[in-house]
Amino acid sequence: MRDAYQEQLDELADGLAGMCDEVAAAMQKATRSLLEIDLQLAEEVISEDVRVDDLRAAAEEKAFALLALQAPVATDLRTVVSAIHGAGDIERMGDLALHVAQAARRRHPHPVLPEEVAPYFAEMGRVGVELARKAGQVIRTRDLAQAAQLESDDDAMDDLHRHMFTVLMDRNWSHGVGPAVDITLLARFYERYADHAVAVARRIVYVVTGQMPGPLTV
Amino acid sequence: MRDAYQEQLDELADGLAGMCDEVAAAMQKATRSLLEIDLQLAEEVISEDVRVDDLRAAAEEKAFALLALQAPVATDLRTVVSAIHGAGDIERMGDLALHVAQAARRRHPHPVLPEEVAPYFAEMGRVGVELARKAGQVIRTRDLAQAAQLESDDDAMDDLHRHMFTVLMDRNWSHGVGPAVDITLLARFYERYADHAVAVARRIVYVVTGQMPGPLTV
Repeated sequence: MRDAYQEQLDELADGLAGMCDEVAAAMQKATRSLLEIDLQLAEEVISEDVRVDDLRAAAEEKAFALLALQAPVATDLRTVVSAIHGAGDIERMGDLALHVAQAARRRHPHPVLPEEVAPYFAEMGRVGVELARKAGQVIRTRDLAQAAQLESDDDAMDDLHRHMFTVLMDRNWSHGVGPAVDITLLARFYERYADHAVAVARRIVYVVTGQMPGPLTV
Repeated sequence: MRDAYQEQLDELADGLAGMCDEVAAAMQKATRSLLEIDLQLAEEVISEDVRVDDLRAAAEEKAFALLALQAPVATDLRTVVSAIHGAGDIERMGDLALHVAQAARRRHPHPVLPEEVAPYFAEMGRVGVELARKAGQVIRTRDLAQAAQLESDDDAMDDLHRHMFTVLMDRNWSHGVGPAVDITLLARFYERYADHAVAVARRIVYVVTGQMPGPLTV
Protein backbone atom coordinates (compact mmCIF):
# COMPACT_ATOMS: atom_id res chain seq x y z
CA MET A 1 0.00 0.00 0.00
CA ARG A 2 2.72 2.40 1.02
CA ASP A 3 4.54 1.65 -2.25
CA ALA A 4 1.56 2.41 -4.47
CA TYR A 5 1.08 5.61 -2.49
CA GLN A 6 4.73 6.65 -2.91
CA GLU A 7 4.41 5.84 -6.60
CA GLN A 8 1.40 8.14 -6.89
CA LEU A 9 3.34 10.96 -5.22
CA ASP A 10 6.24 10.39 -7.61
CA GLU A 11 3.90 10.38 -10.60
CA LEU A 12 2.45 13.68 -9.46
CA ALA A 13 5.94 15.24 -9.29
CA ASP A 14 6.91 13.73 -12.67
CA GLY A 15 3.77 15.15 -14.22
CA LEU A 16 4.58 18.64 -12.94
CA ALA A 17 8.20 18.44 -14.04
CA GLY A 18 7.00 17.33 -17.47
CA MET A 19 4.68 20.34 -17.59
CA CYS A 20 7.70 22.57 -16.92
CA ASP A 21 9.48 21.04 -19.90
CA GLU A 22 6.38 21.61 -22.05
CA VAL A 23 6.08 25.28 -21.16
CA ALA A 24 9.85 25.76 -21.55
CA ALA A 25 9.56 24.38 -25.10
CA ALA A 26 6.48 26.54 -25.72
CA MET A 27 8.25 29.73 -24.63
CA GLN A 28 11.32 28.84 -26.68
CA LYS A 29 9.18 28.38 -29.78
CA ALA A 30 7.09 31.45 -29.04
CA THR A 31 10.23 33.58 -28.71
CA ARG A 32 11.56 32.21 -31.99
CA SER A 33 8.23 32.91 -33.70
CA LEU A 34 8.55 36.49 -32.46
CA LEU A 35 12.18 37.00 -33.47
CA GLU A 36 12.12 35.08 -36.74
CA ILE A 37 8.61 36.26 -37.73
CA ASP A 38 7.64 32.62 -38.12
CA LEU A 39 3.87 32.17 -38.35
CA GLN A 40 4.09 28.38 -38.46
CA LEU A 41 5.90 28.27 -35.12
CA ALA A 42 3.43 30.71 -33.60
CA GLU A 43 0.54 28.51 -34.74
CA GLU A 44 2.20 25.47 -33.21
CA VAL A 45 2.48 27.14 -29.81
CA ILE A 46 -1.12 28.28 -30.01
CA SER A 47 -2.53 24.89 -30.94
CA GLU A 48 -0.33 22.98 -28.48
CA ASP A 49 -1.30 25.00 -25.40
CA VAL A 50 -4.28 22.71 -24.81
CA ARG A 51 -1.78 19.95 -23.99
CA VAL A 52 -0.57 21.91 -20.97
CA ASP A 53 -4.17 22.57 -19.92
CA ASP A 54 -4.84 18.83 -20.08
CA LEU A 55 -1.72 18.04 -18.07
CA ARG A 56 -2.85 20.50 -15.45
CA ALA A 57 -6.27 18.90 -15.22
CA ALA A 58 -4.63 15.47 -14.93
CA ALA A 59 -2.28 16.69 -12.19
CA GLU A 60 -5.18 18.18 -10.24
CA GLU A 61 -7.15 14.98 -10.55
CA LYS A 62 -4.19 12.99 -9.30
CA ALA A 63 -3.72 15.37 -6.36
CA PHE A 64 -7.41 15.20 -5.58
CA ALA A 65 -7.42 11.39 -5.63
CA LEU A 66 -4.39 11.33 -3.34
CA LEU A 67 -6.10 13.63 -0.85
CA ALA A 68 -9.35 11.68 -0.94
CA LEU A 69 -7.93 8.16 -0.81
CA GLN A 70 -4.66 8.49 1.11
CA ALA A 71 -5.32 11.44 3.42
CA PRO A 72 -1.62 12.41 3.44
CA VAL A 73 -0.18 14.42 6.33
CA ALA A 74 2.98 16.45 7.03
CA THR A 75 5.50 16.54 4.15
CA ASP A 76 3.29 14.44 1.88
CA LEU A 77 0.36 16.79 2.40
CA ARG A 78 2.60 19.77 1.66
CA THR A 79 3.74 17.99 -1.49
CA VAL A 80 0.21 17.47 -2.74
CA VAL A 81 -0.97 20.99 -1.92
CA SER A 82 2.16 22.44 -3.53
CA ALA A 83 1.51 20.34 -6.62
CA ILE A 84 -1.97 21.86 -6.87
CA HIS A 85 -0.43 25.34 -6.70
CA GLY A 86 2.42 24.40 -9.02
CA ALA A 87 0.11 22.99 -11.68
CA GLY A 88 -1.73 26.33 -11.71
CA ASP A 89 1.49 28.32 -12.00
CA ILE A 90 2.87 26.17 -14.79
CA GLU A 91 -0.38 26.25 -16.75
CA ARG A 92 -0.24 30.03 -16.52
CA MET A 93 3.30 29.96 -17.90
CA GLY A 94 1.88 28.08 -20.88
CA ASP A 95 -0.77 30.78 -21.31
CA LEU A 96 1.91 33.46 -21.29
CA ALA A 97 3.93 31.64 -23.97
CA LEU A 98 0.66 31.44 -25.91
CA HIS A 99 0.20 35.21 -25.57
CA VAL A 100 3.68 35.79 -27.00
CA ALA A 101 2.83 33.54 -29.96
CA GLN A 102 -0.50 35.33 -30.44
CA ALA A 103 1.32 38.68 -30.65
CA ALA A 104 3.64 37.25 -33.32
CA ARG A 105 0.62 35.95 -35.25
CA ARG A 106 -1.35 39.17 -34.87
CA ARG A 107 1.33 41.30 -36.57
CA HIS A 108 2.41 38.73 -39.16
CA PRO A 109 3.97 39.23 -41.74
CA HIS A 110 5.26 42.34 -39.99
CA PRO A 111 7.73 42.01 -37.13
CA VAL A 112 6.36 42.88 -33.68
CA LEU A 113 9.76 44.08 -32.52
CA PRO A 114 11.87 46.88 -33.93
CA GLU A 115 15.37 45.60 -34.63
CA GLU A 116 17.05 47.31 -31.70
CA VAL A 117 14.84 45.70 -29.04
CA ALA A 118 14.93 42.17 -30.51
CA PRO A 119 18.12 41.20 -28.60
CA TYR A 120 16.44 42.02 -25.28
CA PHE A 121 13.59 39.70 -26.09
CA ALA A 122 16.00 36.99 -27.20
CA GLU A 123 17.57 37.33 -23.75
CA MET A 124 14.23 37.41 -21.92
CA GLY A 125 13.27 34.27 -23.81
CA ARG A 126 16.53 32.57 -22.90
CA VAL A 127 16.21 33.45 -19.21
CA GLY A 128 12.54 32.46 -19.14
CA VAL A 129 13.13 29.06 -20.74
CA GLU A 130 16.04 28.47 -18.38
CA LEU A 131 13.81 29.31 -15.40
CA ALA A 132 11.12 26.88 -16.54
CA ARG A 133 13.67 24.10 -17.00
CA LYS A 134 15.24 24.78 -13.62
CA ALA A 135 11.81 24.76 -11.97
CA GLY A 136 11.27 21.30 -13.48
CA GLN A 137 14.62 20.13 -12.12
CA VAL A 138 13.84 21.52 -8.66
CA ILE A 139 10.58 19.55 -8.68
CA ARG A 140 12.55 16.42 -9.55
CA THR A 141 15.54 16.89 -7.22
CA ARG A 142 14.16 19.10 -4.41
CA ASP A 143 17.58 20.74 -4.46
CA LEU A 144 17.29 23.88 -2.30
CA ALA A 145 20.49 25.43 -3.69
CA GLN A 146 19.07 25.21 -7.19
CA ALA A 147 15.74 26.59 -5.98
CA ALA A 148 17.61 29.63 -4.66
CA GLN A 149 19.29 30.05 -8.06
CA LEU A 150 15.94 30.77 -9.66
CA GLU A 151 15.72 33.93 -7.60
CA SER A 152 18.82 35.41 -9.21
CA ASP A 153 17.68 34.39 -12.69
CA ASP A 154 14.44 36.19 -11.91
CA ASP A 155 16.42 39.29 -10.90
CA ALA A 156 18.01 39.19 -14.36
CA MET A 157 14.54 39.04 -15.90
CA ASP A 158 13.36 41.98 -13.78
CA ASP A 159 16.37 44.01 -14.94
CA LEU A 160 15.57 43.26 -18.58
CA HIS A 161 11.92 44.13 -17.97
CA ARG A 162 12.81 47.46 -16.37
CA HIS A 163 15.28 48.21 -19.12
CA MET A 164 12.58 47.81 -21.77
CA PHE A 165 10.63 50.64 -20.16
CA THR A 166 13.71 52.86 -20.21
CA VAL A 167 14.03 52.16 -23.94
CA LEU A 168 10.34 52.91 -24.57
CA MET A 169 10.35 56.12 -22.56
CA ASP A 170 13.52 57.43 -24.21
CA ARG A 171 13.18 60.53 -26.36
CA ASN A 172 14.92 58.67 -29.16
CA TRP A 173 12.17 56.06 -29.39
CA SER A 174 11.11 56.47 -33.01
CA HIS A 175 8.62 53.65 -33.54
CA GLY A 176 5.53 55.30 -32.14
CA VAL A 177 2.77 54.10 -29.87
CA GLY A 178 1.70 50.82 -31.54
CA PRO A 179 4.99 48.95 -31.15
CA ALA A 180 5.42 50.47 -27.68
CA VAL A 181 2.09 48.98 -26.59
CA ASP A 182 3.04 45.56 -28.00
CA ILE A 183 6.43 45.64 -26.31
CA THR A 184 4.95 46.73 -22.97
CA LEU A 185 2.65 43.72 -22.94
CA LEU A 186 5.25 41.28 -24.25
CA ALA A 187 7.82 42.33 -21.66
CA ARG A 188 5.16 41.87 -18.99
CA PHE A 189 4.40 38.34 -20.27
CA TYR A 190 8.04 37.30 -19.93
CA GLU A 191 8.33 38.86 -16.52
CA ARG A 192 5.19 37.11 -15.24
CA TYR A 193 6.36 33.84 -16.78
CA ALA A 194 9.54 34.13 -14.71
CA ASP A 195 7.57 34.99 -11.55
CA HIS A 196 5.50 31.82 -11.88
CA ALA A 197 8.64 29.68 -12.33
CA VAL A 198 10.03 31.20 -9.12
CA ALA A 199 6.72 30.53 -7.35
CA VAL A 200 6.99 26.85 -8.31
CA ALA A 201 10.52 26.63 -6.90
CA ARG A 202 9.42 28.41 -3.71
CA ARG A 203 6.68 25.88 -3.14
CA ILE A 204 9.30 23.14 -3.30
CA VAL A 205 11.34 24.97 -0.67
CA TYR A 206 8.18 24.96 1.42
CA VAL A 207 7.68 21.22 0.87
CA VAL A 208 11.21 20.46 2.00
CA THR A 209 11.59 22.95 4.84
CA GLY A 210 7.99 23.56 5.93
CA GLN A 211 8.67 27.30 5.54
CA MET A 212 7.82 29.57 2.63
CA PRO A 213 10.72 31.80 1.52
CA GLY A 214 10.00 35.56 1.73
CA PRO A 215 7.33 37.02 -0.53
CA LEU A 216 7.98 37.42 -4.23
CA THR A 217 7.90 41.09 -5.17
CA VAL A 218 5.59 41.52 -8.12
CA MET B 1 -17.03 16.59 16.12
CA ARG B 2 -19.00 17.02 12.93
CA ASP B 3 -20.16 20.43 14.16
CA ALA B 4 -16.65 21.71 14.83
CA TYR B 5 -15.69 20.44 11.40
CA GLN B 6 -18.59 22.19 9.68
CA GLU B 7 -17.70 25.32 11.59
CA GLN B 8 -14.14 25.15 10.27
CA LEU B 9 -15.43 24.84 6.72
CA ASP B 10 -17.72 27.82 7.26
CA GLU B 11 -14.87 29.85 8.72
CA LEU B 12 -12.76 29.07 5.68
CA ALA B 13 -15.52 30.34 3.36
CA ASP B 14 -16.08 33.43 5.53
CA GLY B 15 -12.38 34.20 5.41
CA LEU B 16 -12.35 34.04 1.62
CA ALA B 17 -15.49 36.13 1.26
CA GLY B 18 -13.91 38.69 3.61
CA MET B 19 -10.81 38.73 1.39
CA CYS B 20 -13.06 39.54 -1.58
CA ASP B 21 -14.47 42.52 0.30
CA GLU B 22 -10.93 43.67 1.15
CA VAL B 23 -9.72 43.56 -2.46
CA ALA B 24 -12.94 45.20 -3.67
CA ALA B 25 -12.28 48.08 -1.26
CA ALA B 26 -8.62 48.17 -2.35
CA MET B 27 -9.52 48.40 -6.05
CA GLN B 28 -12.12 51.06 -5.35
CA LYS B 29 -9.58 53.17 -3.49
CA ALA B 30 -6.86 52.50 -6.07
CA THR B 31 -9.17 53.64 -8.87
CA ARG B 32 -10.05 56.79 -6.96
CA SER B 33 -6.37 57.48 -6.32
CA LEU B 34 -5.83 57.21 -10.07
CA LEU B 35 -8.77 59.38 -11.10
CA GLU B 36 -8.54 61.97 -8.33
CA ILE B 37 -4.71 62.04 -8.31
CA ASP B 38 -4.85 61.32 -4.59
CA LEU B 39 -1.47 60.27 -3.21
CA GLN B 40 -2.84 59.62 0.27
CA LEU B 41 -5.33 57.06 -1.04
CA ALA B 42 -2.64 55.41 -3.16
CA GLU B 43 -0.40 55.08 -0.10
CA GLU B 44 -3.24 53.54 1.87
CA VAL B 45 -3.79 50.84 -0.76
CA ILE B 46 -0.06 50.15 -0.91
CA SER B 47 0.39 49.84 2.85
CA GLU B 48 -2.81 47.83 3.36
CA ASP B 49 -2.02 45.11 0.81
CA VAL B 50 -0.13 43.15 3.45
CA ARG B 51 -3.48 42.55 5.18
CA VAL B 52 -4.69 40.56 2.19
CA ASP B 53 -1.43 38.61 2.10
CA ASP B 54 -1.93 37.75 5.78
CA LEU B 55 -5.53 36.69 5.18
CA ARG B 56 -4.35 34.45 2.39
CA ALA B 57 -1.73 32.82 4.61
CA ALA B 58 -4.39 32.32 7.31
CA ALA B 59 -6.82 30.78 4.80
CA GLU B 60 -4.15 28.40 3.54
CA GLU B 61 -3.26 27.37 7.06
CA LYS B 62 -6.90 26.71 7.82
CA ALA B 63 -7.28 24.66 4.66
CA PHE B 64 -4.13 22.74 5.45
CA ALA B 65 -5.30 21.96 8.99
CA LEU B 66 -8.65 20.77 7.65
CA LEU B 67 -6.95 18.43 5.18
CA ALA B 68 -4.54 17.08 7.79
CA LEU B 69 -6.98 16.63 10.67
CA GLN B 70 -10.33 15.96 9.02
CA ALA B 71 -9.36 14.25 5.76
CA PRO B 72 -12.45 15.60 3.97
CA VAL B 73 -13.84 13.81 0.91
CA ALA B 74 -16.29 14.59 -1.93
CA THR B 75 -17.89 18.06 -1.75
CA ASP B 76 -15.98 19.01 1.40
CA LEU B 77 -12.68 18.13 -0.23
CA ARG B 78 -13.62 20.16 -3.30
CA THR B 79 -14.49 23.04 -0.98
CA VAL B 80 -11.11 22.98 0.70
CA VAL B 81 -9.11 22.62 -2.53
CA SER B 82 -11.16 25.40 -4.12
CA ALA B 83 -10.49 27.59 -1.11
CA ILE B 84 -6.76 27.08 -1.62
CA HIS B 85 -7.13 28.17 -5.25
CA GLY B 86 -9.49 30.98 -4.38
CA ALA B 87 -7.17 32.42 -1.73
CA GLY B 88 -4.43 32.61 -4.38
CA ASP B 89 -6.72 34.32 -6.89
CA ILE B 90 -7.99 36.86 -4.40
CA GLU B 91 -4.51 37.67 -3.11
CA ARG B 92 -3.51 38.31 -6.73
CA MET B 93 -6.48 40.69 -7.08
CA GLY B 94 -5.05 42.60 -4.13
CA ASP B 95 -1.66 42.75 -5.87
CA LEU B 96 -3.30 44.16 -8.99
CA ALA B 97 -5.09 46.86 -6.99
CA LEU B 98 -1.69 47.60 -5.46
CA HIS B 99 -0.17 47.95 -8.94
CA VAL B 100 -2.87 50.48 -9.87
CA ALA B 101 -2.08 52.49 -6.73
CA GLN B 102 1.66 52.27 -7.46
CA ALA B 103 1.06 53.76 -10.92
CA ALA B 104 -0.88 56.64 -9.34
CA ARG B 105 1.96 57.21 -6.85
CA ARG B 106 4.70 56.95 -9.49
CA ARG B 107 3.29 59.81 -11.59
CA HIS B 108 2.09 61.97 -8.69
CA PRO B 109 1.43 64.95 -8.77
CA HIS B 110 0.80 64.41 -12.49
CA PRO B 111 -2.25 62.48 -13.60
CA VAL B 112 -1.53 59.04 -15.10
CA LEU B 113 -4.57 59.28 -17.35
CA PRO B 114 -5.31 61.86 -20.04
CA GLU B 115 -8.76 63.30 -19.47
CA GLU B 116 -10.47 61.49 -22.33
CA VAL B 117 -9.57 58.00 -21.10
CA ALA B 118 -10.40 58.61 -17.41
CA PRO B 119 -14.09 57.63 -17.84
CA TYR B 120 -13.08 54.20 -19.19
CA PHE B 121 -10.99 53.57 -16.11
CA ALA B 122 -13.79 54.77 -13.86
CA GLU B 123 -15.93 52.14 -15.56
CA MET B 124 -13.26 49.41 -15.38
CA GLY B 125 -12.91 50.19 -11.68
CA ARG B 126 -16.65 50.00 -11.15
CA VAL B 127 -16.97 46.67 -12.99
CA GLY B 128 -13.92 45.26 -11.22
CA VAL B 129 -15.14 46.19 -7.74
CA GLU B 130 -18.56 44.78 -8.58
CA LEU B 131 -16.95 41.51 -9.72
CA ALA B 132 -14.95 41.19 -6.51
CA ARG B 133 -18.06 41.80 -4.38
CA LYS B 134 -20.09 39.31 -6.38
CA ALA B 135 -17.32 36.71 -6.05
CA GLY B 136 -17.56 37.17 -2.27
CA GLN B 137 -21.32 36.73 -2.39
CA VAL B 138 -21.01 33.59 -4.51
CA ILE B 139 -18.61 32.15 -1.92
CA ARG B 140 -21.19 32.90 0.78
CA THR B 141 -24.33 31.78 -1.05
CA ARG B 142 -23.04 29.22 -3.60
CA ASP B 143 -25.67 30.69 -5.91
CA LEU B 144 -24.94 29.30 -9.38
CA ALA B 145 -27.06 31.90 -11.17
CA GLN B 146 -25.00 34.65 -9.59
CA ALA B 147 -21.79 32.79 -10.44
CA ALA B 148 -22.89 32.82 -14.08
CA GLN B 149 -23.50 36.58 -13.86
CA LEU B 150 -19.81 37.17 -13.25
CA GLU B 151 -19.11 35.90 -16.75
CA SER B 152 -21.12 38.65 -18.38
CA ASP B 153 -19.57 41.30 -16.12
CA ASP B 154 -16.22 39.96 -17.25
CA ASP B 155 -17.31 40.32 -20.90
CA ALA B 156 -17.99 43.99 -20.16
CA MET B 157 -14.46 44.30 -18.74
CA ASP B 158 -12.98 42.62 -21.81
CA ASP B 159 -14.84 45.06 -24.05
CA LEU B 160 -13.48 48.02 -22.09
CA HIS B 161 -9.99 46.51 -22.22
CA ARG B 162 -10.15 46.03 -25.99
CA HIS B 163 -11.54 49.50 -26.45
CA MET B 164 -8.55 51.03 -24.65
CA PHE B 165 -6.27 49.53 -27.30
CA THR B 166 -8.39 51.04 -30.06
CA VAL B 167 -8.02 54.43 -28.39
CA LEU B 168 -4.25 54.02 -28.01
CA MET B 169 -3.74 52.87 -31.61
CA ASP B 170 -5.85 55.66 -33.07
CA ARG B 171 -4.05 58.21 -35.21
CA ASN B 172 -5.58 60.95 -33.08
CA TRP B 173 -3.80 59.74 -29.95
CA SER B 174 -1.84 62.84 -29.00
CA HIS B 175 -0.30 61.94 -25.64
CA GLY B 176 2.72 60.06 -26.87
CA VAL B 177 4.36 56.83 -25.77
CA GLY B 178 4.71 57.33 -21.98
CA PRO B 179 1.00 57.58 -21.14
CA ALA B 180 0.26 54.83 -23.68
CA VAL B 181 2.61 52.46 -21.84
CA ASP B 182 1.00 53.32 -18.48
CA ILE B 183 -2.49 52.83 -19.86
CA THR B 184 -1.58 49.52 -21.50
CA LEU B 185 -0.41 48.12 -18.18
CA LEU B 186 -3.25 49.62 -16.15
CA ALA B 187 -5.90 48.24 -18.49
CA ARG B 188 -4.22 44.85 -18.23
CA PHE B 189 -4.31 45.04 -14.40
CA TYR B 190 -8.07 45.63 -14.40
CA GLU B 191 -8.67 42.90 -16.92
CA ARG B 192 -6.63 40.37 -14.95
CA TYR B 193 -8.35 41.44 -11.73
CA ALA B 194 -11.68 40.57 -13.36
CA ASP B 195 -10.34 37.22 -14.63
CA HIS B 196 -9.36 36.21 -11.11
CA ALA B 197 -12.80 37.14 -9.75
CA VAL B 198 -14.37 34.93 -12.42
CA ALA B 199 -11.95 32.11 -11.56
CA VAL B 200 -13.11 32.29 -7.92
CA ALA B 201 -16.76 32.02 -8.97
CA ARG B 202 -15.95 29.13 -11.31
CA ARG B 203 -14.36 27.19 -8.49
CA ILE B 204 -17.58 27.57 -6.52
CA VAL B 205 -19.51 26.16 -9.48
CA TYR B 206 -17.09 23.25 -9.34
CA VAL B 207 -17.66 22.79 -5.61
CA VAL B 208 -21.42 22.68 -6.07
CA THR B 209 -21.65 20.70 -9.31
CA GLY B 210 -18.43 18.70 -9.35
CA GLN B 211 -17.80 20.11 -12.85
CA MET B 212 -15.60 23.01 -13.87
CA PRO B 213 -17.32 25.41 -16.29
CA GLY B 214 -15.52 25.81 -19.66
CA PRO B 215 -12.08 27.40 -19.69
CA LEU B 216 -11.69 31.11 -19.14
CA THR B 217 -10.24 32.75 -22.23
CA VAL B 218 -7.27 34.85 -21.19
